[in-house]
Amino acid sequence: MADMTIKRINPTPRWSDVTIFNGIAHFVEVAEAPENASFRVQVEQIFEQAEASLQNAGSDKSSLLSATIYLTDFANFAEFNQLWEAWLPAGTAPSRACVKAELVDPDYLLEIAFVAAVTAG
Amino acid sequence: MADMTIKRINPTPRWSDVTIFNGIAHFVEVAEAPENASFRVQVEQIFEQAEASLQNAGSDKSSLLSATIYLTDFANFAEFNQLWEAWLPAGTAPSRACVKAELVDPDYLLEIAFVAAVTAG
Amino acid sequence: MADMTIKRINPTPRWSDVTIFNGIAHFVEVAEAPENASFRVQVEQIFEQAEASLQNAGSDKSSLLSATIYLTDFANFAEFNQLWEAWLPAGTAPSRACVKAELVDPDYLLEIAFVAAVTAG
Repeated sequence: MADMTIKRINPTPRWSDVTIFNGIAHFVEVAEAPENASFRVQVEQIFEQAEASLQNAGSDKSSLLSATIYLTDFANFAEFNQLWEAWLPAGTAPSRACVKAELVDPDYLLEIAFVAAVTAG
Repeated sequence: MADMTIKRINPTPRWSDVTIFNGIAHFVEVAEAPENASFRVQVEQIFEQAEASLQNAGSDKSSLLSATIYLTDFANFAEFNQLWEAWLPAGTAPSRACVKAELVDPDYLLEIAFVAAVTAG
Repeated sequence: MADMTIKRINPTPRWSDVTIFNGIAHFVEVAEAPENASFRVQVEQIFEQAEASLQNAGSDKSSLLSATIYLTDFANFAEFNQLWEAWLPAGTAPSRACVKAELVDPDYLLEIAFVAAVTAG
């Protein structure tokens, strides 16, 4: 049975790294060290951070339900898809939206908002 | 009782058409044949695709919880609203956000990310 | 146990103020009186509206799970963060995404899409 209390991982005054409620985890990732980081490096950072967030939530990257991908430049779209498909376990891709948007730090090249299942909940 | 396993409809390496978990379906639609398609035609394609996604999930368009609408040009906003209101069954409109965004295929004029309830789950 | 029927607050033909299903509320806020309203005033309106939406849903601002913040101008980002952190009860910040986007009414300076837990459900 799902846990109907709210769990938060690393809450700050501004955001929590992850919120978990009723078997659903919400988390958002931008590269933690974006300065002078190529698009590929930022994606790798985000994927590593996402795996840590999922692990902390009691989930993993095979349990993604939804991803909203904000890219600052569609010139990076093909590279993103290549890395994304290599990252996801076969047969587990989430629902996915992808749009272009400016991000708060001009060093950021992408931001991803995830929803994941926590089946262990 | 809701199903706490993850169901995915048409998973590809990049995305699934729909994910379903704990009575919640996530799916995103862009027009499947956007080339030379007017805004109205793209909206009609998206609504038809959404109805198919909902049916495959065991839901229907009266069970939408949330819609995030990305339009490439607000000149299409009035027409969108007219089609949207005609599409939704009376009294069942979801929560709705609408913002302007560039989309990955320059032929795309809109993209909609949906969350829906699967009450049959 | 969560309620597996869909509740909607103030459904119109275009949107519902809030949808609630399986312990999860979805709602989106823009300032109700944006004309000649400063950024600060729009944020205050949105926070007041969000509190009303949460109360109507049987929840409150300590139960936010996710926020997607669309700003029309990142010049307002620092002020937003100050107001946001002052608004949230300590230790309850949601997962948060923040991107730049044009909004449907040129008077709007921000729009926020929320997901919240309804623990009383």
